[in-house]
Amino acid sequence: MAKNQKQFVEEITPMEVDFAQWYTDVIKKTDLVDYSPVKGFMVIKHYGYAIWENIQAYMDRRFKETGHKNMYFPLLIPESLLQKEAEHVEGFAPEVAWVTHGGDEELAERLCVRPTSETIICSMYAKWLSSYRDLPFLYNQWCNVVRWEKSTRPFLRTSEFLWQEGHTLHETYDEAQEETLKMLNVYRETAENLLAMPVVVGRKTDREKFAGAYATYTMEALMHDGKALQAGTSHNLGQHFTKAFEIEYQDREGKQQHPYHTSWGVSTRLIGGIIMVHGDNRGLSLPPGIAPIQAVIVPIAAHKGGVNEAAAKIFEELKPAFRMELDDREQYSPGWKFNEWEMKGVPLRIEIGPRDLEQEQVVLFRRDTLEKETCSLSQVKQRVGELLEAIQKNLLEKAREMRDQKTHVVHDEETFKRIMKETPGFVKAMWCGDEDCEERVKAETGATIRCIPFEQEKLGDTCPFCAKPAEQMVYYAKAY
Amino acid sequence: MAKNQKQFVEEITPMEVDFAQWYTDVIKKTDLVDYSPVKGFMVIKHYGYAIWENIQAYMDRRFKETGHKNMYFPLLIPESLLQKEAEHVEGFAPEVAWVTHGGDEELAERLCVRPTSETIICSMYAKWLSSYRDLPFLYNQWCNVVRWEKSTRPFLRTSEFLWQEGHTLHETYDEAQEETLKMLNVYRETAENLLAMPVVVGRKTDREKFAGAYATYTMEALMHDGKALQAGTSHNLGQHFTKAFEIEYQDREGKQQHPYHTSWGVSTRLIGGIIMVHGDNRGLSLPPGIAPIQAVIVPIAAHKGGVNEAAAKIFEELKPAFRMELDDREQYSPGWKFNEWEMKGVPLRIEIGPRDLEQEQVVLFRRDTLEKETCSLSQVKQRVGELLEAIQKNLLEKAREMRDQKTHVVHDEETFKRIMKETPGFVKAMWCGDEDCEERVKAETGATIRCIPFEQEKLGDTCPFCAKPAEQMVYYAKAY
Repeated sequence: MAKNQKQFVEEITPMEVDFAQWYTDVIKKTDLVDYSPVKGFMVIKHYGYAIWENIQAYMDRRFKETGHKNMYFPLLIPESLLQKEAEHVEGFAPEVAWVTHGGDEELAERLCVRPTSETIICSMYAKWLSSYRDLPFLYNQWCNVVRWEKSTRPFLRTSEFLWQEGHTLHETYDEAQEETLKMLNVYRETAENLLAMPVVVGRKTDREKFAGAYATYTMEALMHDGKALQAGTSHNLGQHFTKAFEIEYQDREGKQQHPYHTSWGVSTRLIGGIIMVHGDNRGLSLPPGIAPIQAVIVPIAAHKGGVNEAAAKIFEELKPAFRMELDDREQYSPGWKFNEWEMKGVPLRIEIGPRDLEQEQVVLFRRDTLEKETCSLSQVKQRVGELLEAIQKNLLEKAREMRDQKTHVVHDEETFKRIMKETPGFVKAMWCGDEDCEERVKAETGATIRCIPFEQEKLGDTCPFCAKPAEQMVYYAKAY
Repeated sequence: MAKNQKQFVEEITPMEVDFAQWYTDVIKKTDLVDYSPVKGFMVIKHYGYAIWENIQAYMDRRFKETGHKNMYFPLLIPESLLQKEAEHVEGFAPEVAWVTHGGDEELAERLCVRPTSETIICSMYAKWLSSYRDLPFLYNQWCNVVRWEKSTRPFLRTSEFLWQEGHTLHETYDEAQEETLKMLNVYRETAENLLAMPVVVGRKTDREKFAGAYATYTMEALMHDGKALQAGTSHNLGQHFTKAFEIEYQDREGKQQHPYHTSWGVSTRLIGGIIMVHGDNRGLSLPPGIAPIQAVIVPIAAHKGGVNEAAAKIFEELKPAFRMELDDREQYSPGWKFNEWEMKGVPLRIEIGPRDLEQEQVVLFRRDTLEKETCSLSQVKQRVGELLEAIQKNLLEKAREMRDQKTHVVHDEETFKRIMKETPGFVKAMWCGDEDCEERVKAETGATIRCIPFEQEKLGDTCPFCAKPAEQMVYYAKAY
């Protein structure tokens, strides 16, 4: 029954050999997710879903602290509503699923399964808003959305995913802009503090912005294979939707006005990011902040006097403070268990055997550094707390180093193309601001402008591609 | 701007005049919910959604304590999967929404929006299960479902609703039966301890059971208008689905077996129950366990020296312990606020004015009894805790009395018909066990058998309707 380490390691394709296969192996073998009978739709298994629950709990608290409340809007949106904002329908119509029949009856108007909820929410906001006293509207929704994708990968691009979408209304442009950036900052802090995932934050180019937005802001993370992941976006929607949906209020002077509008969202895609930022050839490596199991206890020679009892005692002691697992399964050897929990990315393993018990100690193994240390039984709780904190910090540090290593400054087209081909990653370069130039780079290299970062550096005066004057620095990358 | 009490009270139709209108007035005027542009679909506004969040938090904890983990399965189910279990498809096919197009393409096989997830989950369980060592499977899903309803009412019957659905697999029939009843008991405890809603628990007749179930168990609550609400169901599905979906495992003797299967669910319908069990002509009356705001502080003559500051201080003191609101809006009078928060069912109101401040006290007003008391400033936190507990208890007690008052024992058809017409409620009566008899009672009176309760009483020897021998006592009622 027991498998040895070799078998386990062989099951995951090394990322250097085939990154896409490595990703697929990891998500399948660690039981995060499974493919469903519906093409492009995933089943999120409990180990993956528990990560999402931990992300949700943290973000929901942050949303509430910043004054937002949750609501729930209908799954299905009438076609006529979707069509009210011109850019929006153009962007989304090609990728929506259409409900045409209810029971045996054909519907008079077909309904789309929400790809995002601006339109249905705006139709309600128009009913609810009457006075400046009602503003701001600060609401969020946790839900599922459907976008009919041709080519899918679990977590990264699926026809259905789970997410949150915030939708707010404000009296002034400035307030809406402040909200847009405030929520982007909540996202950045979630990525860095909870997911240990460093991100570059900035504005999308007009070509890359959300369908119907005035401006889109984004956080972009870099994966192990040098590709970028758009990990969260926050949109200043201006008055595009509020005019199209005739949302009006009486302002402080008694005049009718259209409010300013934002929306912002992150999704289960974040889990894909965690995998590809922290994972290695042994499998997952999870930041303690979101790990479903923060520490696992593995008894060794468990049948020998008192080992199982000691393990159970430690488990009871630590359970109130940390997300714990006691692996006392009899059909597997300790070595098999070590490998399984390493593959599943549990940040800390606590080993206890007869000799440890004699010396009143345990062995602590860190998944991030693969280092072991001993710890006296009386200190276990404190030490586990310290190590989880250290692991969280170290994972962020390691991810920063990885990203910096894969970030290049480029001044000429030839170098750009070589890097994108040979050692892809973030490329910082000046940009002329011309959409045609942006388009050509994409067509020729597959790389897109990920964002115009808030933190600008003056790398030169001209665009590396068209030699026209360039005033903005941008981040290019191939992206998921 | 300020409205007086009269206006407020007039806005809610008294329940004695028109119960359905009372319900509609309450849900609309208390901002729990709104109608959406999609017929039969509701928007759950933040005050209603917060109740659902509190229910979710409690139940999710109970599910996890009883060994269950959460997963997420696809929203869309291929028609061929839905058709695998004969009774199930017959029960659900007439009320599902069908997706026929993805983007511009017509789908080769149409997909239904899940009305419940037995079929898609069984198709995955068939992949995952191989050995008795894998059992039991104890998984739950929080999600939205769609059932195409002709006639809808917010929370009670809507084309989309939110719920949880547990789906478990077991080695033996007995274990599945134990699970079925264990989860029904978690539901009962949730209803009684959290929602202060007394319930009758028992088994559904075959006519009323879930499509595809071996046996369905239910909890039934009684509303103010004497109609019953099916508030949660737990199904022993036997091997119906596991055979249809070819779910098999190798048992302890090495033989291939089909496991035994359960499913169980409660939904946002519970919120409708809370409204109709505790509400009165002033509006909602919420049990502290699920109230989005447990206590609201209303400063009186707030501009006078120190009142606002004192109110803010109490707010800060109580906030860590209770769900608090400080209503310091300047555009409304205290009287207007009193009425609004009473209507919204906030269990406790804390009033503080200049005279209270002089005497270092506050006034505490209970929504359930409409009683006031004074409390010294130094005791507020403790007293609020005590009163919230007392309110929770009293609401359950009051609801029990109401239910008992509306529960009748009946031995003859004439009395039965008179009660169902004049003073509807639960009717306890003996039942012959004949489906035709059950059907006739429904056709002639509109009442159905709500359940065969676990707590049996021998009321007689014959069925009041057909005079045949009767061994079981049942609860009849008209129902939502």
